[in-house]
Amino acid sequence: MSQRKNPNECIPQGFLFAAEEGGLRTHGSGPDVALIYTVAPARVAALFTANRVKAAPILVSQDHLRGSLRTARAIVVNAGNANCATGESGIRAARQCATETARLLKIRPNQVLLASTGVIGVPLNASVITRILPSLARQLHPEGYVAASRAILTTDTRPKVAARSLLISGRRITILGMAKGAGMIYPRMATMLGFIFTDAAVEPPFLRAATRRMGELSFNRISVDGDTSTNDTVFVLANGMAGNKPIQEKSPAGKKFLEVLTAVAQELAIEMVRDGEGARKLAEIRVEGTVTEKQADAIARSIALSSLVKTALAGADPNWGRILAAAGNAGVAFDPHHVDIYLNRTLVCKNGVATHFSEPTLQRQLRAKEVLIRVIFKQGRAQTRFWTCDFTEEYIRINASYRT
Amino acid sequence: MSQRKNPNECIPQGFLFAAEEGGLRTHGSGPDVALIYTVAPARVAALFTANRVKAAPILVSQDHLRGSLRTARAIVVNAGNANCATGESGIRAARQCATETARLLKIRPNQVLLASTGVIGVPLNASVITRILPSLARQLHPEGYVAASRAILTTDTRPKVAARSLLISGRRITILGMAKGAGMIYPRMATMLGFIFTDAAVEPPFLRAATRRMGELSFNRISVDGDTSTNDTVFVLANGMAGNKPIQEKSPAGKKFLEVLTAVAQELAIEMVRDGEGARKLAEIRVEGTVTEKQADAIARSIALSSLVKTALAGADPNWGRILAAAGNAGVAFDPHHVDIYLNRTLVCKNGVATHFSEPTLQRQLRAKEVLIRVIFKQGRAQTRFWTCDFTEEYIRINASYRT
Repeated sequence: MSQRKNPNECIPQGFLFAAEEGGLRTHGSGPDVALIYTVAPARVAALFTANRVKAAPILVSQDHLRGSLRTARAIVVNAGNANCATGESGIRAARQCATETARLLKIRPNQVLLASTGVIGVPLNASVITRILPSLARQLHPEGYVAASRAILTTDTRPKVAARSLLISGRRITILGMAKGAGMIYPRMATMLGFIFTDAAVEPPFLRAATRRMGELSFNRISVDGDTSTNDTVFVLANGMAGNKPIQEKSPAGKKFLEVLTAVAQELAIEMVRDGEGARKLAEIRVEGTVTEKQADAIARSIALSSLVKTALAGADPNWGRILAAAGNAGVAFDPHHVDIYLNRTLVCKNGVATHFSEPTLQRQLRAKEVLIRVIFKQGRAQTRFWTCDFTEEYIRINASYRT
Repeated sequence: MSQRKNPNECIPQGFLFAAEEGGLRTHGSGPDVALIYTVAPARVAALFTANRVKAAPILVSQDHLRGSLRTARAIVVNAGNANCATGESGIRAARQCATETARLLKIRPNQVLLASTGVIGVPLNASVITRILPSLARQLHPEGYVAASRAILTTDTRPKVAARSLLISGRRITILGMAKGAGMIYPRMATMLGFIFTDAAVEPPFLRAATRRMGELSFNRISVDGDTSTNDTVFVLANGMAGNKPIQEKSPAGKKFLEVLTAVAQELAIEMVRDGEGARKLAEIRVEGTVTEKQADAIARSIALSSLVKTALAGADPNWGRILAAAGNAGVAFDPHHVDIYLNRTLVCKNGVATHFSEPTLQRQLRAKEVLIRVIFKQGRAQTRFWTCDFTEEYIRINASYRT
């Protein structure tokens, strides 16, 4: 596996970025509109929210991807307004942004992808975005990714960027990702935007398959508050400028590419949880020894979503009973008398019953920034990992006053 | 429909209650063990948690109900310790309580039902309960229901009692219920105990059917935090001492009995939500105009469980976008452009798009103790009601320090 890299050393060839303040945020300041451009047309794989209510930028992006045979030259993204539940005028606003971008960059409108995040149900004034597009186009620059990664944030406290490089048949390939998260983070796509750029050439069917698997192992295995948004979007763009032979599935190169792509996505996903609204603590949940991966996933998800587990984490309370109870809610059959639970390296529950452990010592350990919860079922060999955060008063404070 | 009654005027004949402090609570004081006795054997219908992890008192009660052909003479219930994840010794402790009760009251052990609520994974010392049973047996009294309703509380701030009477062929029948809730409250049985007593004679198959339907329309339609406990139990006991002809299904008397039983259970359920951990506000969610009741239920549940909807309620924020987004997560197909949303009597979203309403006026209204959320789908004629509470910093405070 490739090592974590300084993003500045891993900017994929041919990708340019710019960001500026349009004034869409009701709170705070800083850039809120970003433009991303690729010099060579990129193959695109996308993951969109599973929510029945889909924001206008998603509907328009889906339409553009069909029209462009899944290629793109640019992404326009804004924070501050989700452009969701805005009816026909929302669709028009999204199309206007794409048309104006296409005109400026001399590309086709359906080569422009759109993403928005922010408040739902407030009309988006497209001119706030279109009037700064010329200035954004002038500023496009490889190192603009830093500003772009800031322009997509909402309640996030910091930008999330991850990068890796790998060698494929002697060619150096780079992968750079940026994401925003914070709240409404839940498996099956959360209020999150994630953009991953690579200069690799990748066979389109494999790019889509790799993106799906990457999503399953990263963005779909995290939870902040169990809500799934109307705007979740992941775009993976591969522009082929590294000059490698297109990577195919079931090849050693394909395996390596999927590994590194997943590593970038997991790093972004874990950063999202760590920066979850009000989160002070990251918990990794490992479920082991179920018969199927699906069972392990269901149990890990139930634990990760339990308000009681998450408040116990906030209180550094080694309350494994809540973990066992949450596992019991997953709809998976198991005998509680064959379950072991570890908190960090301490066995707290053996065969469904309390062990003798030092509660003060463990409590002290649980005050750390990272906690490992292992739940072991002794039924089979499947396993999964899932990431969640603690549930604090700060989460409530943030969300009880988001708009007002 | 019968009117809400002063419980003192509706104590069903032949039911006696007593409660005392055994010292099981780690916090606070007050009675924590209750004994309930019926002079004539009662027919029993029970609802138990759907959690795969079931506490010892549930396993023993299920065993007793099989052995006694679903009849009972007594219930022993304690707060402070859930007797769950306590292994074989937990089962032994539960059986010891039943045996000792049976000996004292000269009944069979399998005529004793058990229920516990409190911390999971801490061994229950049966002698704490058995040593006060003689004193409890001496104090049995119809008006002991007041003390019993207090002995079952955990983080609840007040007891929950509801009562009704009805006339069936000239005989006055009374129904008295008590419940505890507060946290871990979620459809499909929550951390709740509910005991409903009636002096009606009811045909056993109808008693079970009526109890199931009552549960669907009350305890399974409420949510505090989305967690389902290992100890949830509802017992409905009918001892026939009113002397009526046994009530049958599909008779006018059966219809009336189900209505009044459901009214008692709904009153208890709503009180549980109102007293939810940290709750300052009760929200009734009405979903209307879906094709099936199942769809309406799924959507209402998704809204009721959304942390973002619940924090918006806490902030008196008329953030209907979160309501629409939560509806979109229910897995039910619908066109967002045919959805209307009312907050109290204000239409805030018409056909999926914001209306012009006065936000300050509505915010002021939403600061009230009760809020009505109506979501209308225009697809069919099915509807449902669901109750939830706001999600406050106090919830976190309570649960981050429950044990420690």
